Amino acid sequence: MREPEFLRARRPEHKQQRREAILAAARELALQSGVRMVSLRAVAAAAGLAKSNVVRYFGTREEIYLELAAEEWQGWRDAATERLRAAGGPGDVVDALAETLEARPLMCDLLGYVSASLEHNVSLEAARAFKMALLDVGADLGAQVARSTGLTDGEGVELVGVATGLAAFLYPMAHPSPVLAELYAQEPWIAATRPPFLPTLKRALTAFLAGLPTLR
Amino acid sequence: MREPEFLRARRPEHKQQRREAILAAARELALQSGVRMVSLRAVAAAAGLAKSNVVRYFGTREEIYLELAAEEWQGWRDAATERLRAAGGPGDVVDALAETLEARPLMCDLLGYVSASLEHNVSLEAARAFKMALLDVGADLGAQVARSTGLTDGEGVELVGVATGLAAFLYPMAHPSPVLAELYAQEPWIAATRPPFLPTLKRALTAFLAGLPTLR
Repeated sequence: MREPEFLRARRPEHKQQRREAILAAARELALQSGVRMVSLRAVAAAAGLAKSNVVRYFGTREEIYLELAAEEWQGWRDAATERLRAAGGPGDVVDALAETLEARPLMCDLLGYVSASLEHNVSLEAARAFKMALLDVGADLGAQVARSTGLTDGEGVELVGVATGLAAFLYPMAHPSPVLAELYAQEPWIAATRPPFLPTLKRALTAFLAGLPTLR
Repeated sequence: MREPEFLRARRPEHKQQRREAILAAARELALQSGVRMVSLRAVAAAAGLAKSNVVRYFGTREEIYLELAAEEWQGWRDAATERLRAAGGPGDVVDALAETLEARPLMCDLLGYVSASLEHNVSLEAARAFKMALLDVGADLGAQVARSTGLTDGEGVELVGVATGLAAFLYPMAHPSPVLAELYAQEPWIAATRPPFLPTLKRALTAFLAGLPTLR
């Protein structure tokens, strides 16, 4: 396969350019067909690089997606922060968290793979960088949630954790496989039992938020 | 590969025996090394069958695990039912759901794969059988939860759904990969942020259960 512009990146800005091209290709492919369907080979092809070249930047497919997961978390923090600044009470906080999650399909898709798969096939340094980003965002958003709800900072972190956990579970249900879509078309009563992403997430977070202070 | 006892199962009881041998092998392998690590080839080898023979019984690896997921759900129903019959109030209900989930590691592991992966590579009939088993167990346990908590049946089903959703998210965190275990050993402060499975699940369900009636 011919490689674009420069055969092998040696200068730091070229290396950075390569990394970003790989991440952009992986992001685009995952948004098109879902994280689970994307191979390292496909990422390499979409980035116009040989697979052997991609692994100089990311040791494994999972390292690429763990880095995208960290980027998505940080992007979520920015979007949620903007909404939380304007939040007047618990209802606004629930709306802010749920709606900014719904607006990030790649994050929701990745959430289901982080612990179960992405953290399995990566280097120690990649795992460390990801965990630190995750904890930083969780603590930050938790404190912001606390300010608008009367929850403690710790309870705010719990609400953020429950929001991401339920989003991870609800997202694939809202994006059924072709065979499930066929089943739903044949059996509307089964289709009707599917929990819709945004209302289900909001309702669960509202109940959780209302119940948390009773545990003090 | 030599096959045991009879080369090809023709009589119904032999076919049933083969199916059960395949399911038992898949169950055992998943409990040893996690669902994600088990290939169809490994299941065939452990069952003493050729891969080409296994696919006569289950079209794909995912069909085997979707059937095990249905079995696990039904087993969970039986275990939770026994506990719920003796439940005196909301605290007992939360304990019953959370403790019976913790006691079923294969179910918790499978929960994370059902929507995201298992339902993707199966036949329509396998998907239909699984969904019907799932909905039946959900409705049944939801009604039982309602009887001991003052929740409506629908709210009971929601509690059961949240319990399984959070269990799916918490289980892999409680069973970190080798690289994560190494990170936790190096950074005890990161290890300390991990949500422990049973207390986290109980606390979240208690808050959710307390908050649900405020949404009526």
